[in-house]
Amino acid sequence: MPGNSRAAGTHHSRPSSSEEPPDLEDQELLLAAAYVSDAQYNRNVPFETSPQAIRLYHFYNHWTMRAATYFFIWVNLALALFEEPAVFPLPFLVTSIAEVLCLTAFFGRLVHFAKVTPQKVFWKDTKNICVMVTIVLTLIDLVIYGSLEAVNIRGVRWSRALRPVFLINFPESRQIRRTFRSIRNTLPDILYVFLLFLFSMMIFSLMALKLFGDRDLRTVEGSPYFTNILDIAFELYVLVTTANSPDVMMPAYELNWWYSLYFITYIIINTYIFMSVFLAVIYNNYRKHLKNEIHTLAYLKHHKMTEAFNILKVKVGTEFVVKEARWRRLVKVVAPDVSSSHLELLLRISDEGQKGHVDKVNFLRLADLLNIRVVAINIKKHPLETWMPRVYQSSTSLLVQKMVQHRIFVWVYDVIILINAIFIALDEKDSLISYAEWLFLSLYIIEILLKLYTYEPSAYFGRKQFWNWFDTLIIIAALLATVANTTIQARKYNSQQVLDIVLILRILRLLRVIVSIQRFRVIVTTLINIGPTMLTFGGLVLVVYYAFAIIGMEVFHGKIHFLDPGSGSPDALVCGNPALKDSAFAQGRYCKNNFNDLASSLILLTELTVVNQWHILADGFALVTHQAAKLYFIGFHVVVVILIVNIFIAFILEAFFVAYSLEKSEVETAIEKKIQELGVGVQEEEVQNGGLIDNMDAKDSGFSADEGDNKKKDLKGLYFRIASKTGI
Amino acid sequence: MPGNSRAAGTHHSRPSSSEEPPDLEDQELLLAAAYVSDAQYNRNVPFETSPQAIRLYHFYNHWTMRAATYFFIWVNLALALFEEPAVFPLPFLVTSIAEVLCLTAFFGRLVHFAKVTPQKVFWKDTKNICVMVTIVLTLIDLVIYGSLEAVNIRGVRWSRALRPVFLINFPESRQIRRTFRSIRNTLPDILYVFLLFLFSMMIFSLMALKLFGDRDLRTVEGSPYFTNILDIAFELYVLVTTANSPDVMMPAYELNWWYSLYFITYIIINTYIFMSVFLAVIYNNYRKHLKNEIHTLAYLKHHKMTEAFNILKVKVGTEFVVKEARWRRLVKVVAPDVSSSHLELLLRISDEGQKGHVDKVNFLRLADLLNIRVVAINIKKHPLETWMPRVYQSSTSLLVQKMVQHRIFVWVYDVIILINAIFIALDEKDSLISYAEWLFLSLYIIEILLKLYTYEPSAYFGRKQFWNWFDTLIIIAALLATVANTTIQARKYNSQQVLDIVLILRILRLLRVIVSIQRFRVIVTTLINIGPTMLTFGGLVLVVYYAFAIIGMEVFHGKIHFLDPGSGSPDALVCGNPALKDSAFAQGRYCKNNFNDLASSLILLTELTVVNQWHILADGFALVTHQAAKLYFIGFHVVVVILIVNIFIAFILEAFFVAYSLEKSEVETAIEKKIQELGVGVQEEEVQNGGLIDNMDAKDSGFSADEGDNKKKDLKGLYFRIASKTGI
Repeated sequence: MPGNSRAAGTHHSRPSSSEEPPDLEDQELLLAAAYVSDAQYNRNVPFETSPQAIRLYHFYNHWTMRAATYFFIWVNLALALFEEPAVFPLPFLVTSIAEVLCLTAFFGRLVHFAKVTPQKVFWKDTKNICVMVTIVLTLIDLVIYGSLEAVNIRGVRWSRALRPVFLINFPESRQIRRTFRSIRNTLPDILYVFLLFLFSMMIFSLMALKLFGDRDLRTVEGSPYFTNILDIAFELYVLVTTANSPDVMMPAYELNWWYSLYFITYIIINTYIFMSVFLAVIYNNYRKHLKNEIHTLAYLKHHKMTEAFNILKVKVGTEFVVKEARWRRLVKVVAPDVSSSHLELLLRISDEGQKGHVDKVNFLRLADLLNIRVVAINIKKHPLETWMPRVYQSSTSLLVQKMVQHRIFVWVYDVIILINAIFIALDEKDSLISYAEWLFLSLYIIEILLKLYTYEPSAYFGRKQFWNWFDTLIIIAALLATVANTTIQARKYNSQQVLDIVLILRILRLLRVIVSIQRFRVIVTTLINIGPTMLTFGGLVLVVYYAFAIIGMEVFHGKIHFLDPGSGSPDALVCGNPALKDSAFAQGRYCKNNFNDLASSLILLTELTVVNQWHILADGFALVTHQAAKLYFIGFHVVVVILIVNIFIAFILEAFFVAYSLEKSEVETAIEKKIQELGVGVQEEEVQNGGLIDNMDAKDSGFSADEGDNKKKDLKGLYFRIASKTGI
Repeated sequence: MPGNSRAAGTHHSRPSSSEEPPDLEDQELLLAAAYVSDAQYNRNVPFETSPQAIRLYHFYNHWTMRAATYFFIWVNLALALFEEPAVFPLPFLVTSIAEVLCLTAFFGRLVHFAKVTPQKVFWKDTKNICVMVTIVLTLIDLVIYGSLEAVNIRGVRWSRALRPVFLINFPESRQIRRTFRSIRNTLPDILYVFLLFLFSMMIFSLMALKLFGDRDLRTVEGSPYFTNILDIAFELYVLVTTANSPDVMMPAYELNWWYSLYFITYIIINTYIFMSVFLAVIYNNYRKHLKNEIHTLAYLKHHKMTEAFNILKVKVGTEFVVKEARWRRLVKVVAPDVSSSHLELLLRISDEGQKGHVDKVNFLRLADLLNIRVVAINIKKHPLETWMPRVYQSSTSLLVQKMVQHRIFVWVYDVIILINAIFIALDEKDSLISYAEWLFLSLYIIEILLKLYTYEPSAYFGRKQFWNWFDTLIIIAALLATVANTTIQARKYNSQQVLDIVLILRILRLLRVIVSIQRFRVIVTTLINIGPTMLTFGGLVLVVYYAFAIIGMEVFHGKIHFLDPGSGSPDALVCGNPALKDSAFAQGRYCKNNFNDLASSLILLTELTVVNQWHILADGFALVTHQAAKLYFIGFHVVVVILIVNIFIAFILEAFFVAYSLEKSEVETAIEKKIQELGVGVQEEEVQNGGLIDNMDAKDSGFSADEGDNKKKDLKGLYFRIASKTGI
């Protein structure tokens, strides 16, 4: 194929540029597009290069197919809400049919993938094996459970804990797998620190046994204090999490204040030093691993782009290049929704000398270029200016515009918002205050209208003008909320949830203050930028939570019940289980913290992640089952708090360091340079500070002056700027 | 001066090398030594260069003077133990005389410093002003308090909170000041994150008020739930520290499980994200700051070494150099305790070509060379080998030696230690078990004796053979402990503290396991290496703790008493204060957590640092004084937990990264190269693995073969290795 196109390229005269080599077939273009697209999204799937396979591969990567896969994954996970023990119970027949449907979809996706990828690769990939094994196991489990159900025996739906396998193992969840890999690579290093930590705990346990075991001390609850080595070990493990500090120390401390030194030493060594070392080891590995992954990705990207180049290249003079027309066709296949002006900009960057073709170096950058979001800002006159220029340009109107653009305008509204906050805090039953609500709302609406009067609306609500959208949506929500509130109040609290949402919406308007304080906006923008990667952690946490929740539900389901204490039933005080009598669990009224359905389980697991009082929860469930139940809770702590939370912290640290040392990447700089060169740039600060229009006007007038300049011809009336950085 | 020596240098013939230029006066040498010494220890004190001032400066830096200063600083700080409210009460007259003595010592030190440093510099330095002002204020406070005491009015000894000023502001505490500076530089960045955090808390507080305020909910204790905006803000601040999770959520959760989403959102945003951002901001600043400081230090070091060079240099050929004899004199003044073999090694490194003089580049490295601890290992035959070679070299003896050096020997003893651990855990009143004690001890002693038989004792107990010392000391301690234990048991528990120490010593022997597991030893070595810098944090924490403790004692002293609950007094259940009736503080038996003396205060502050249950402690003290007392506890949390603990974590992270990316510094490499070149190197691993003797023997025989080699002549029988890295 490459030979073909090279031959085709040579029989053209050299300076010709716009004519298309006639022999590039659609399937070759598709293959090149597949390579570029894989490079752009860092996909690393080996696929067959037969025409049919490429078409299937494009279809495989189509967003509808991916969306459908995710839909079925979520349906499958959500089934736990409807299965016994259910939040919203549905008959077993319904959930099992839904599950079989999901499994069929997964199987279909897998077959699709098998047709795309070489057979050898397919069968070597553990991901595919995992998915297949899970499908088979789930079917077996379904059949067994169904048959037992038919003869009224309650079985264990153990395969439900395997459902997250689908979330992890489809090629779309690269990020989650990467994080898991990162954890796995950290394990050997962690292991030795963990063993040393356990060893230190053992030594301290022995000391505690010797120091306090014979003293006949009692805890606040009156139980014996530090007499059994296993209990001591558990208490000390809890102390590492700080959850029972200082209670665990008090009996010894009351005896003699010297004993507090034992506990303080323990906390310094095990809580502060060891836990920091865990973080250090995990963070260090995370960083190392991240660097390796990025190197690999860069290598693969380069490789794929070279493949694509080899398909498209023709020889011009002594070097191989890609002709402009062919380049355009490629980009249109890879990114069908790119605007034509954006495409022109990219072409200008790639074909610097305007020679009508793109050389190899510039072609290889294409994947990165496509990844950078460039915002096209359409410069138009304000509609009012077109419609009634005399009025809009009158001195009163200009004064209003100047006022709105002034810094003081922002400050006045900040003060109004703060006064509003005070009013919200006050009792709203006072009619004067509820009238004030309407006053504030009208002030906000006036603000929006004034801004729309001053700024060109379609620029103000541009696609990437996040903060303007944020501001306006909040005001609209507040307006809706206040209207709804009045309606509801007239009918006296009949829908509690609607009322609650209304209340929250009304308070969220205070967030507008963030918009007007530059430093706040920077922090929030950083947090929003790391949001997508944070979702990876969402996925990771979900996987672990889901598995633990299913296990928890199978083991602890129905052991603890929440009974309304108002009912006066004596069982309500012991959560329906006499084993909890006098336990801290029952005294803390923790009955709602149970594994009786998926929602409760997930909330309980969140509480365990927060760590505080987890030992009371663990004790409670140990009392109603067996002491070994504590292992479940310790396991959860090790996996989630020691591993995952530390990875999360490592991730935030790294993300903030990157944000602080914010340097635009080489490619971004190239684009920006070109934008500036073409004279279509907008300074980011100017956009943020609301000075957009001024700037645009100035540039616009400058534009008409050198209209003849052919460089700017195609891009007239458009401004670009680099949108915020995209994640890795 | 430099002109002088240059002139002296020129009238010697060029190739001459060993003759001393006669005109270098002692005072010039002292001045050069002062520069080198300052460079070595990173001191940055401008001093007068008059002969008298230099002599005074040497005296000022003498270790006795510094030790004396620290002694008085500690005495001064320790006075709080003896002053009302005292752990060990002493009359006011005694403590005030001690304090005046300390102040006199500080003043003397200051005067000494004023004589050394130029007047202008002295009066511009805020450190000196701070110390002087604090001395004056303390004296005033002493007089006022004394007079009030005389007429029986109880005054406030407020100046005691200023005592840490002395610890911070003497030039010796450079490290602590550096950390304080690091915190101060971080504050602006932290401030905005903190404001945003407060803003987010405010929004959530308003939401909580609106969502739960009118629902008439009750907490477990029966008090109204989320009805007052200030209480809500406090509860939510506590929730950030996770100390009241999940209790604060339970009433709302019982009402409807949807409400748990409010709390989970709050925890994700404020606990996980904001607290990680705090760590990120602090860590980032810490790193940046550290880099700057290191640059400055390197610059100053270079500058000082150049000054020293200019004093000592003579011209040889076209370049200025320092003659060997003069170099020797200098090193002997700067580091009087350097061994002559070490000195020779340093000279060989500095004077590579053996030209009899040291050039400028090599001279400038001197400060770093002196900082690197080089261990000289004296190779001697085993005393027994000299004494009775026949027996020692007999096949039985060699077999024993081989056995001791074998890996299995270590494993056998690891197993013995573990069995010992089990015996310790068992009840020791059983006489069989207490006999087993003696068995274990004799096994340990046999081990030590066998090792001393196999390894050359003075090498085994070399100055830097940390782990051998550790091992032996533990066994000796265990032996002493067991003997003491038997003696005491014969007399039935008459000294509780001695018994406790004995118990702890007996258990600490289990630490020997660490010595035999390589990976454990690496982790522990890293921790020990960062120990000295960790002490800086100790100083920092002490300063903050002390100030907070003194304030706490003045404010909360005597409000809460611990009365023995066994006495049956009803006051004992409310900690002597009826205001605490039914409070969580009294129910948790927290009466010992009070500010009634320095020890209790410091323990209480440690509990607050650990965070858990701090809100109960805060509530307790608010009940017995005023709600505003909570501000003291919140302030402590912000300063210690948000700032200092995060800096501590940042420090551990950085220290571990450095340890992981362990590369020897340029200078260390140079030394090591030279050691290897001279053939006197010992591989570090060999030393650690106990194969020391084998290796030495091999080298020793190799040595006698090329005895004539003059390079190795001076250093015969000595081996060097680089000791562990020194901290910054």
